Amino acid sequence: MDVNALADGVADGDRRSLARAITLVESARADHREQALALLSSLRGLDRQALRLGLSGTPGVGKSTFIEAFGCRLTEAGKRVAVLAIDPSSARTGGSILGDKTRMERLSRDPRAFIRPSPSQSQMGGVARRTREVVALCEAAGFDLVLIETVGVGQSETMVAQMCDIFLLLLAPAGGDELQGVKRGIMEVADLILVNKADGDLKPAAMRTAADYALALRLLRHRPQDPPGFPKVLPVSAETGDGLAGAWDEIASLAAWRRENGHWQARRADQARGWFEEEVRQGLLARLSREPMRGVLERLGQEVAGGQRAPEAAAAELLAMVGR
Amino acid sequence: MDVNALADGVADGDRRSLARAITLVESARADHREQALALLSSLRGLDRQALRLGLSGTPGVGKSTFIEAFGCRLTEAGKRVAVLAIDPSSARTGGSILGDKTRMERLSRDPRAFIRPSPSQSQMGGVARRTREVVALCEAAGFDLVLIETVGVGQSETMVAQMCDIFLLLLAPAGGDELQGVKRGIMEVADLILVNKADGDLKPAAMRTAADYALALRLLRHRPQDPPGFPKVLPVSAETGDGLAGAWDEIASLAAWRRENGHWQARRADQARGWFEEEVRQGLLARLSREPMRGVLERLGQEVAGGQRAPEAAAAELLAMVGR
Repeated sequence: MDVNALADGVADGDRRSLARAITLVESARADHREQALALLSSLRGLDRQALRLGLSGTPGVGKSTFIEAFGCRLTEAGKRVAVLAIDPSSARTGGSILGDKTRMERLSRDPRAFIRPSPSQSQMGGVARRTREVVALCEAAGFDLVLIETVGVGQSETMVAQMCDIFLLLLAPAGGDELQGVKRGIMEVADLILVNKADGDLKPAAMRTAADYALALRLLRHRPQDPPGFPKVLPVSAETGDGLAGAWDEIASLAAWRRENGHWQARRADQARGWFEEEVRQGLLARLSREPMRGVLERLGQEVAGGQRAPEAAAAELLAMVGR
Repeated sequence: MDVNALADGVADGDRRSLARAITLVESARADHREQALALLSSLRGLDRQALRLGLSGTPGVGKSTFIEAFGCRLTEAGKRVAVLAIDPSSARTGGSILGDKTRMERLSRDPRAFIRPSPSQSQMGGVARRTREVVALCEAAGFDLVLIETVGVGQSETMVAQMCDIFLLLLAPAGGDELQGVKRGIMEVADLILVNKADGDLKPAAMRTAADYALALRLLRHRPQDPPGFPKVLPVSAETGDGLAGAWDEIASLAAWRRENGHWQARRADQARGWFEEEVRQGLLARLSREPMRGVLERLGQEVAGGQRAPEAAAAELLAMVGR
């Protein structure tokens, strides 16, 4: 594979090149991995940045409808939008490849949009790495906005928070009791909470829910990366489009404020360092699944299971083999 | 420190030796770690097994009252009972050292019982290792039963499930809607579900809740390690003692069945292998916090944060240094 040609294609914003580049970084083959590293290093020189927007929400809250409506609005305004999905359940279900695209019919046909379903991969660590790298590819391909979507399951939200600039939480109208169902952890990473379905019969409930969450947010401590008034809660309707323009204005003004005040750059620097450290950890652990360590691990593991050896002692023996 | 003398003391069931041995395995000092490994290896030769009982339940369900009543009943029957706690929040709160003991006043004064509060430790991995090793020490000290308690937070339950023979879930009487609040994951590891507070006004609710859970359990697939009728649900009252004898009978018969059918040994073998592999993983990662890797990680991390270097490329460089 000609990595330079592929890099040129991605840099030109060519969709087929981007799709091929994504397939390359998602490959588990060792030679592909080397090419992927070369590609990423070469593209990093472009120093293009998109707005990386994280989006989380439990199933049924209307995420696909929201992305469709929100994304089309942005592409109509001339922006190029990439949509990526992290689906922690995809390891079991085989991914939501068809689901994602059919639920975003207009956006998926939009030449300014690029929708990539979640890679199916058994390890969360692997999903994080691939998604991070796909984000970098989309940035290099000149997208203005990269939206990283996940369902509201703890670990995947933390992962998305670690790779986005701004985090949106999409919620459904709910009774006051149900507020507790939203985990504190996600409230702490959310920059903007959108209460969807603020239309028709549900509108009063959505308004009330928005007010309830606004109150709940005040209980969280102020974060230095927030201008006054943030994190913020807004009622929206993905169905009618009400509130979507306002939501985008809030996102844009938050992004501008963070850029002006150095928080944007600081967050990206922290994230890059965190990714580096995570890559190192995963790389170290990967040695366990390669020879010669794999064989030793297997043999000692059998002796431990058979009771001939203590787990701690066997581990110490193996670790001594790999040196300090 | 004379490790042989300490091992003899533990093997004799001497409480002060056990306490000192626990302090040793909980120490982070390198020389202590070596002594701890020697101690554990030497004691493993005794090949003593206690019944390791995991116990989980959300705060407010009456865990301490249950342990006090259940534990005293067992010590009165001549059994020696050790109670350990895994508290995932203890890293922040500084542990529940006083809380645990004062809430189990009778049991903590009982010469046949030994209560050890949760170690405070920032890493879950570290908590797991220490608790596993403390369990091994208690077994070597001749306890008949080691009860490992945790509050109902996902990760710590998985951890306890990986170190116990039988897992109890303690629940409070609840309305039907609230059944969903119990995570499927914990239902899948529970062997016996006890609905507490089946006394006074709450008795009808507890009976109803028990019936509801019994129904819910039937939706889970049958596990090969279960005799017919398991997992089982029982209403109990830690307050009045009602149902505690029955709960113990169920535990004892389940334990006997699993021993007779080889599941007990198979589970212990799997657990031992899992601990070995986890020790190896933790040991590999620990190298990152020691020189020379710590310094390189720090220097490369700064370059990545400063944008001079791509995260993936920096990670590849560091990993190349440690060889294959």
